[in-house]
Amino acid sequence: MTNRKEPVSGEDSLIARYFRPLATDPGAFGLLDDAAVLKALGDDIVVTTDAIVEGVHFLEGDPPDTVARKALRVNLSDLAAKGATPVGFVLTLALRGADDAWLKPFARGLGEDALDFGCPLLGGDTVSTPGPLMISITAFGRVPPGKMVHRSGAKPGDRVVVTGTIGDAALGLDILRGGTAAAAGDAAGRELLVGRYRVPQPRNILANAVRDHAHAAMDVSDGLAGDLAKLCEASGVSAVIDAPSIPLSAVAAILLARGTVGIEALVSGGDDYEILCAIPEAGFEAFAEAARAAGVAVTAIGTVIADNSAPRFLDGEGREIALKRLSYSHF
Amino acid sequence: MTNRKEPVSGEDSLIARYFRPLATDPGAFGLLDDAAVLKALGDDIVVTTDAIVEGVHFLEGDPPDTVARKALRVNLSDLAAKGATPVGFVLTLALRGADDAWLKPFARGLGEDALDFGCPLLGGDTVSTPGPLMISITAFGRVPPGKMVHRSGAKPGDRVVVTGTIGDAALGLDILRGGTAAAAGDAAGRELLVGRYRVPQPRNILANAVRDHAHAAMDVSDGLAGDLAKLCEASGVSAVIDAPSIPLSAVAAILLARGTVGIEALVSGGDDYEILCAIPEAGFEAFAEAARAAGVAVTAIGTVIADNSAPRFLDGEGREIALKRLSYSHF
Repeated sequence: MTNRKEPVSGEDSLIARYFRPLATDPGAFGLLDDAAVLKALGDDIVVTTDAIVEGVHFLEGDPPDTVARKALRVNLSDLAAKGATPVGFVLTLALRGADDAWLKPFARGLGEDALDFGCPLLGGDTVSTPGPLMISITAFGRVPPGKMVHRSGAKPGDRVVVTGTIGDAALGLDILRGGTAAAAGDAAGRELLVGRYRVPQPRNILANAVRDHAHAAMDVSDGLAGDLAKLCEASGVSAVIDAPSIPLSAVAAILLARGTVGIEALVSGGDDYEILCAIPEAGFEAFAEAARAAGVAVTAIGTVIADNSAPRFLDGEGREIALKRLSYSHF
Repeated sequence: MTNRKEPVSGEDSLIARYFRPLATDPGAFGLLDDAAVLKALGDDIVVTTDAIVEGVHFLEGDPPDTVARKALRVNLSDLAAKGATPVGFVLTLALRGADDAWLKPFARGLGEDALDFGCPLLGGDTVSTPGPLMISITAFGRVPPGKMVHRSGAKPGDRVVVTGTIGDAALGLDILRGGTAAAAGDAAGRELLVGRYRVPQPRNILANAVRDHAHAAMDVSDGLAGDLAKLCEASGVSAVIDAPSIPLSAVAAILLARGTVGIEALVSGGDDYEILCAIPEAGFEAFAEAARAAGVAVTAIGTVIADNSAPRFLDGEGREIALKRLSYSHF
């Protein structure tokens, strides 16, 4: 018979020690039940799910707290792009074993982000796997009824707008893999790029502005070119992008100018977790003003057009850039 | 440039071919957006998440359609025990590759169950993994506000009740692993047990009856003994179980009578996905009547008592059965 003061299994002990402190929402029931309760309070509940796999979305040696942050943030990024306010998440954690040295910083990073983004842990499942670590998160947000921002809805004449900078995470991954970007630039630049790969910065602070102004939006997870193609296809439109307008970090701009990387790698690399949206001309100034107030850079990079071809990227002379690869695909 | 008639990636193609047909709910937006919308319509949304891993919860050679059914049903089972009506689910699928011969029957099994249980696909994520297959599902149900049935709430004097039969799935797994049960019984009996391991039968048909009559409930996933200990701990009570009353299938009863397996293996093996609940004496007849009408066996196996020790299992002579192991634990 178990001692009633002790959890009945190692799995319960692990949950009690590391994850119960993150379950601050009353609907989580302290992770002591089999399910959580979400109260919609008249709003629509927006649901998104994204998983990250060791060796695919993060690397074996990545610090556990950054793995946790990335797992949550790739989902928060979806909520931001849909105009939704985070309300909580559930976590599936597939582990090779219960390693305290890994779990402690993982739970700390997850807990800090849950607090910072107002997105508490509601429940989850912890399973053992002989394979790579995998973290699957389903996150929930709230929007007024019918107000989720869709991929569809972009209209000819809308400005194509992105937040932040594009391509840094792809370069960061290249550095971690010892690619061409690894030899270039200084240590601080490399650290910035690796940081962008490991810990994306979801733009939840702009969710309301997206909801107020965007005709269509999605987050850039698989590469700007491919994700823009998806947004255009869903909206039944096309777009013309002025490639020199695509916002780059200083270090990415230097690597591009030197020819260390090409524009294709930056716009098809993925892992940016910036918001891509179509903003009508009349709403652009108000959107830009909201972004300025929030301290987030937003850049108009092109125009939505009435066409059924794939979006085109033009160089400084107006010539189309041939992109062989648009985005990362798992298969 | 991509041909606009083709999906922009292999992942999108896979989703379009196999999973879009399952996304019948308008809130799924045909899986063409980054998120789904759940409308609570004044109810509470019950959220549960459970993952299954190849080599842990299912075996490498298991038929793909049974893997799909199990992945969904272990979650449906949680909704049933919480008294919730299914409304939909999101799916994370970690695959080694896009193998049509596996995906086609997987999607077919998943789609049939989604239809049968009224639980459509709302969204998901498909990722590649070099490791074992893993399917993580987050399922959603609906209950009137405040009416989710908890683990806590059992009161002294309540009957301890289980649905169906206990221990079959553990025997089925033993057979698949070539254990002692494999050599015993006839082919039909072995098939029944293996079927119970591969495709559990969640008792969603009893969800309303559980909500109407149970003081506390949970599904039996890790083993009756361990799960009862959890229910008692959450309720601040104990229980006395009459082991000979525990409902067994005919084939399990034979294996037990022959000594091929002991009672401990049956009550600690897990994977039963039956409902364990505490029903007040006054409500038992009505609950049993609802179960009869639904064609589900329910059996009173003991009594909740006011005590803070772990639940006790008594044999036919009233002697306590010493259980060394209460349940399956991943760690």
